[in-house]
Amino acid sequence: MSPSRHVVILSGGLDSTTCMALAARDGGRPPLALCFDYGQSHRIELEHAAKVASHYGAERLVVDIDARAWGGSALTDASVDIPQSTGSPDSGQPDPLDIPVTYVPARNIIFLAVALGVAEARDADAVYLGVNALDYSGYPDCRPAFVDAFRAVAAVGQKRALAGRPVGIRTPLIDLTKPQIVRLALDLGAPVELTWSCYRPGPVPCQACDACQLRARGFADAGVSDPALTTP
Amino acid sequence: MSPSRHVVILSGGLDSTTCMALAARDGGRPPLALCFDYGQSHRIELEHAAKVASHYGAERLVVDIDARAWGGSALTDASVDIPQSTGSPDSGQPDPLDIPVTYVPARNIIFLAVALGVAEARDADAVYLGVNALDYSGYPDCRPAFVDAFRAVAAVGQKRALAGRPVGIRTPLIDLTKPQIVRLALDLGAPVELTWSCYRPGPVPCQACDACQLRARGFADAGVSDPALTTP
Repeated sequence: MSPSRHVVILSGGLDSTTCMALAARDGGRPPLALCFDYGQSHRIELEHAAKVASHYGAERLVVDIDARAWGGSALTDASVDIPQSTGSPDSGQPDPLDIPVTYVPARNIIFLAVALGVAEARDADAVYLGVNALDYSGYPDCRPAFVDAFRAVAAVGQKRALAGRPVGIRTPLIDLTKPQIVRLALDLGAPVELTWSCYRPGPVPCQACDACQLRARGFADAGVSDPALTTP
Repeated sequence: MSPSRHVVILSGGLDSTTCMALAARDGGRPPLALCFDYGQSHRIELEHAAKVASHYGAERLVVDIDARAWGGSALTDASVDIPQSTGSPDSGQPDPLDIPVTYVPARNIIFLAVALGVAEARDADAVYLGVNALDYSGYPDCRPAFVDAFRAVAAVGQKRALAGRPVGIRTPLIDLTKPQIVRLALDLGAPVELTWSCYRPGPVPCQACDACQLRARGFADAGVSDPALTTP
């Protein structure tokens, strides 16, 4: 039996990089880093993902799927402004209907779907997805109920599931707060200084969008400075 | 309230074209035809899908997602031969573990995932998928249990689901036999002569692969000749 291998959906942000660290620790072989070039406003994240993958000696697979073709999100439609953070997500669970314009229709559904295909084709045991249900932006596809529903798809919709070996879907950060993720990443020695979270194109994080604000509060609450902001 | 609109996952084959006919009949506006250029051996099907979409005055959206990048199927890996039909699927339900090499890992999972994103972004009510569970090739992602599992994903994983309006997933052919689908297509006046089912590149159907054989038996059992073979 070959050593276990894991597919990590790697955006290049703090959460998915923490998943890389966990998958690298727990797998018998380096993880396979699965990245998506989907027309995102912050395409710069792909460069950061490449550096993180390289740090872990991981094979990197970049899948192009241009979500601008159907739109529906500030992250994939240049005519919709990415808002400044309103601060609304900082008090734990946001109102489930107060979903920001940065929501990308079916993004995690599509990412997990492709990841199941890649895992099956490459004989990986599990897919890691760095969603978390506490300090998030109100996206419906970051919640435990969504992940559980997708696990049921993996359990019936694939050839290897019929053979009794469904691809696992692991979301190890789902119950963690952002400061807990920061501490976990640092404990695992993840290359936090290589990560990119900002929704804007760069070249430096805007510090104003929801993603930057969530990250900044996470580091502040963990009582540490963000190495991505201090490392040249 | 705007008239209902449907997204049809359109391969250009007989089954998805029959779904186009149903969606065109049942929707208040022409359907949106969603096609996938995924590196399939029978890419010629996209030309047929374009003709079918045009027949219905449908907007056509072609999404590129190159499944050759991860492989795992005779349809996306030129080094794996597409087999001649063994005739095994002709006796109804095949052995669930006897899945041919033409299975594409997670194909319908990926197609439905993208379709949910497109439907949400374009405010369509439902997605049509032309799977059927009787005369099929043993693919796990053509079965009712798979479709039901995906409905549960749509019910929790999207913004509009949280607002009480999940995208519907309609599989009107799922309980039909191939001859029943043939008769339905003809009854609906679907442009059967424009369709393409063969797994091989063309320019004419090979008549030997599973897809050709299933189609041929469907027409034979329906007692009609296949207009795609007799129309120049």
